[in-house]
Amino acid sequence: MADHQRIWIAALIVIGDEILSGRTQDRNIAQIAAWLNVQGIRLREVRVVPDVTEAIVEAVNSLRVRNDYLFTTGGIGPTHDDITVDAIAAALGVGVVVHPEARAVLERYYETRGGLTEARLRMARVPEGASLIENRMSGAPGIRHGNIFIMAGVPHITAGMLDALTGTLEGGLPLLSATIGCWVAESEVADLLRAVEKAHGDCQIGSYPFFREGRTGANFVVRSTDRAALDACAGALTEALGAGGWIATQGGI
Amino acid sequence: MADHQRIWIAALIVIGDEILSGRTQDRNIAQIAAWLNVQGIRLREVRVVPDVTEAIVEAVNSLRVRNDYLFTTGGIGPTHDDITVDAIAAALGVGVVVHPEARAVLERYYETRGGLTEARLRMARVPEGASLIENRMSGAPGIRHGNIFIMAGVPHITAGMLDALTGTLEGGLPLLSATIGCWVAESEVADLLRAVEKAHGDCQIGSYPFFREGRTGANFVVRSTDRAALDACAGALTEALGAGGWIATQGGI
Repeated sequence: MADHQRIWIAALIVIGDEILSGRTQDRNIAQIAAWLNVQGIRLREVRVVPDVTEAIVEAVNSLRVRNDYLFTTGGIGPTHDDITVDAIAAALGVGVVVHPEARAVLERYYETRGGLTEARLRMARVPEGASLIENRMSGAPGIRHGNIFIMAGVPHITAGMLDALTGTLEGGLPLLSATIGCWVAESEVADLLRAVEKAHGDCQIGSYPFFREGRTGANFVVRSTDRAALDACAGALTEALGAGGWIATQGGI
Repeated sequence: MADHQRIWIAALIVIGDEILSGRTQDRNIAQIAAWLNVQGIRLREVRVVPDVTEAIVEAVNSLRVRNDYLFTTGGIGPTHDDITVDAIAAALGVGVVVHPEARAVLERYYETRGGLTEARLRMARVPEGASLIENRMSGAPGIRHGNIFIMAGVPHITAGMLDALTGTLEGGLPLLSATIGCWVAESEVADLLRAVEKAHGDCQIGSYPFFREGRTGANFVVRSTDRAALDACAGALTEALGAGGWIATQGGI
């Protein structure tokens, strides 16, 4: 029970020039955030860094110590711009080795796809001391080293790796949420939101305005790890908002 | 000319629990990255932080000194979870004041929308010494303080603010790119990519695999600030790839 009250936190480093140039819309932040929450782990900070060794090393060493878990996405393919493994090994002060199991996985995968070339063998390289994360979508596995989880950049491959990790990480209570939608300008109910949050110490309330069908509205998201506290706060907020408010969704994020 | 050869860099801090919970898919990273590039400024690093003062202060003070420009998105609305202005003022060691012009803007905007309440007046608060960024989409303006640009979280409002800033920031040469698509596994051409990049020192080549119509392919993105160097590198790469390669797009990112 004590462990369940502890808050487990994670950070994510998104590695890739294509995100920082605006060419590619990142999908891994939202995907990993939602998955972590189901594991009872909160994503606390994200950094997006370029394909530059020093930038990766700095981010890894800043974040791995102050978080329970550190995830990275991107830069684990076979080409010259895939430098994540080398950069993380440098950050950890360990060498880079070919993982025999990864080599075997790649040999099987490429048996009918032209064979395991030297470039493809790059994807079997890991920081010394690492274990593998199963890749259910394509050949090259993800990599775990201590509390660092090195994932693919392509979102559906990362999804398969997350699937393989599901239930294997120690976490606490998942963050629960209730979303209350309302046709109201958030500025009209700011005092009310503050008062309801203050009266329900175990809950946080986020306010997210929207514009639909020419009208102003907002979603108010109540978050808590305690189901009873969440229900009480969401109930109080719905009542305070009056006729305009409705429970829109109730779920895990 | 000397100024055009300098590389101008920017960082972005995305502020908001809703991004870190996975509830909201961020759109501002890609939007701001692409806009910055047109201004001749490179987005060098992004951090996503929660609605927590200490986290915002740490990120602001880490990034504002080592970048030419620092952008933030999120947390400038009227509700209790909108703490960006106070956190940035704390990071800068200045007070928070009501900006008279922002107050006038909000008075006009809310004249026909129920009047300027105390909650709404929160959106006229700025770190002391700040100027305003026009908001062409809704009432509350963005804020500029030195090299820090404080923008909205809602993407279409941020888009309007970026539009108002277009052409006002000093930058260098925009990064140009050419994308060469090819029905090839990137692992088959890794050596070729490395050799072409090495032979064209002013260019970087990124490799981005895709899976479409049941086939494996990749986009190779050549980036450079020099049009002639870019064309030469893209030409050499297309020739090296042979029949399978084609120029897919040529543009700014």
